[in-house]
Amino acid sequence: MNVVVNAAMSADGKLSSRRREQVTISGSEDFERVDRLRADSDAVVVGIGTVLADDPRLTVKDRDRRERRLENGEPANPARVVVDSNARTPPDARIVDEQAETYLCVSENAPVERRMNLSDRATLVTAGEKRVDLLRAFAMLQQNGLERLMVEGGGELIFSLLENGLVDELTVFVGPQIIGGRDAPTLADGDGFVENFPELSLEELEKVDDGVLLRWTVQY
Amino acid sequence: MNVVVNAAMSADGKLSSRRREQVTISGSEDFERVDRLRADSDAVVVGIGTVLADDPRLTVKDRDRRERRLENGEPANPARVVVDSNARTPPDARIVDEQAETYLCVSENAPVERRMNLSDRATLVTAGEKRVDLLRAFAMLQQNGLERLMVEGGGELIFSLLENGLVDELTVFVGPQIIGGRDAPTLADGDGFVENFPELSLEELEKVDDGVLLRWTVQY
Repeated sequence: MNVVVNAAMSADGKLSSRRREQVTISGSEDFERVDRLRADSDAVVVGIGTVLADDPRLTVKDRDRRERRLENGEPANPARVVVDSNARTPPDARIVDEQAETYLCVSENAPVERRMNLSDRATLVTAGEKRVDLLRAFAMLQQNGLERLMVEGGGELIFSLLENGLVDELTVFVGPQIIGGRDAPTLADGDGFVENFPELSLEELEKVDDGVLLRWTVQY
Repeated sequence: MNVVVNAAMSADGKLSSRRREQVTISGSEDFERVDRLRADSDAVVVGIGTVLADDPRLTVKDRDRRERRLENGEPANPARVVVDSNARTPPDARIVDEQAETYLCVSENAPVERRMNLSDRATLVTAGEKRVDLLRAFAMLQQNGLERLMVEGGGELIFSLLENGLVDELTVFVGPQIIGGRDAPTLADGDGFVENFPELSLEELEKVDDGVLLRWTVQY
């Protein structure tokens, strides 16, 4: 399994404003890169916070890329995975629409009624007591043939994945704006590390749109 | 007046861990660059949070650079400026030692006794009722001949300066590690912007040590 985190942050490390409203951070060149990366993935993964804040669809936007996937015997769009400990994904969220397969990773703690409401729209993957056990959940995704995973945020999920040693690569677009805010979501939130900070190795550095694209690999 | 913010952040935009303990983010090449920048400044500015967390001295480390300043008729070290609304700088803090001149920017709200305890160690600049009025305080610093200001953090001060339109340039070293943490200090904290995000223009992009140095100018 190969897990790539892909995110766009402001020059001060924020994914959006304190109001959790989406901010346009990157431009058209980066948009194309992200779409290409999606088309090259078996699944696109997000946390429930991102679903509730942005209601993303996470499908491949470019028609030629979808067709190439079909020609390769793959579904037009990669699968979508939501890490959603308490099954809070709204049944009418775009991420559980018909355009692609969806896996919801939930904990045993998720209310049964909510799971039932979602069960005809998504494949439920149950792992962990109160919070999703990411190692077990990802192992189950792998058993379903999902090898190339692209994680698109948010900061809580990215931190948990790093904490569990599950991230191979981190691709970050750093945009030309300041969002600021001690309560604004950042690239890696959670409790944070206080020692043994995960070390990165810079593999690529490139000016893209009006910002910078950094590609790091994680050294465990 | 020219105000340059210089800071080192982790790949996820943090200045230190949630415990406010200093993390080694940059390396020797960046250390030299920062020392050179200090030597080229009339004053080095920090917020009270940085003084309380790190007890920095903010002097020029390289002896040749100090001597060159003396040859140019300047003091060996640039002045130090603390933005300290309530005069919380400890009288035994390194930043008010004998090695350089120090200005403490306080508000009218700062307890008189604390101000008296500090008055023989630093020049007090009073501006603003409850919080330091940065525009007035910086105008008073300029009247004292401080034209080239280098701001070394923390995130609360950097945000306030950006909010007041006082930053000309932002030089950020992005280091090869993840610190994480929703409560860890970031490059720009404060309340944060929710619209009219300050726009930056990328002037320089360079691999330094194991990270990246980004130089942005601020577009007001």
